[in-house]
Amino acid sequence: FVVRPGAAKSPLESRLFDGKINSKIELDSPKVATMDKLVPGDKKVYCRCWLSGTFPLCDASHVAHNKDTGDNVGPLIVSVDKSG
Amino acid sequence: FVVRPGAAKSPLESRLFDGKINSKIELDSPKVATMDKLVPGDKKVYCRCWLSGTFPLCDASHVAHNKDTGDNVGPLIVSVDKSG
Repeated sequence: FVVRPGAAKSPLESRLFDGKINSKIELDSPKVATMDKLVPGDKKVYCRCWLSGTFPLCDASHVAHNKDTGDNVGPLIVSVDKSG
Repeated sequence: FVVRPGAAKSPLESRLFDGKINSKIELDSPKVATMDKLVPGDKKVYCRCWLSGTFPLCDASHVAHNKDTGDNVGPLIVSVDKSG
């Protein structure tokens, strides 16, 4: 890839140049901590690659990231059984 | 840091050289997808930096990572209200 001084870095460039894993989510925030509340019957798939277009939920962006880099990251899937 | 050919890479080296965000969790797995099930009254804090010693749970390793790199990542906190 081409380094363009002053241009925004891609996610891969952010990892390669800065060692950062987040280059797109709430960049104005000092720390992206997400709170979520589930109810019985819920099942949610959460992003752990920081590349999802539907963050904090997974949109399968990790698939391309893993292919591009040889990484092996994937989502967190949390469910709550229905009561009764 | 010093590059030692053949030596295992640190998490930072993995990001800087390979663009990977995971260099320690289940490296033999093609994809680390974690399933968890919560019950009413639960509150769990999940790692999204891939550095936690208690993965899939957070151990605050993101704090040192953010300080070292200027990143802004943090955990996912999921809770389920008690029924009744």
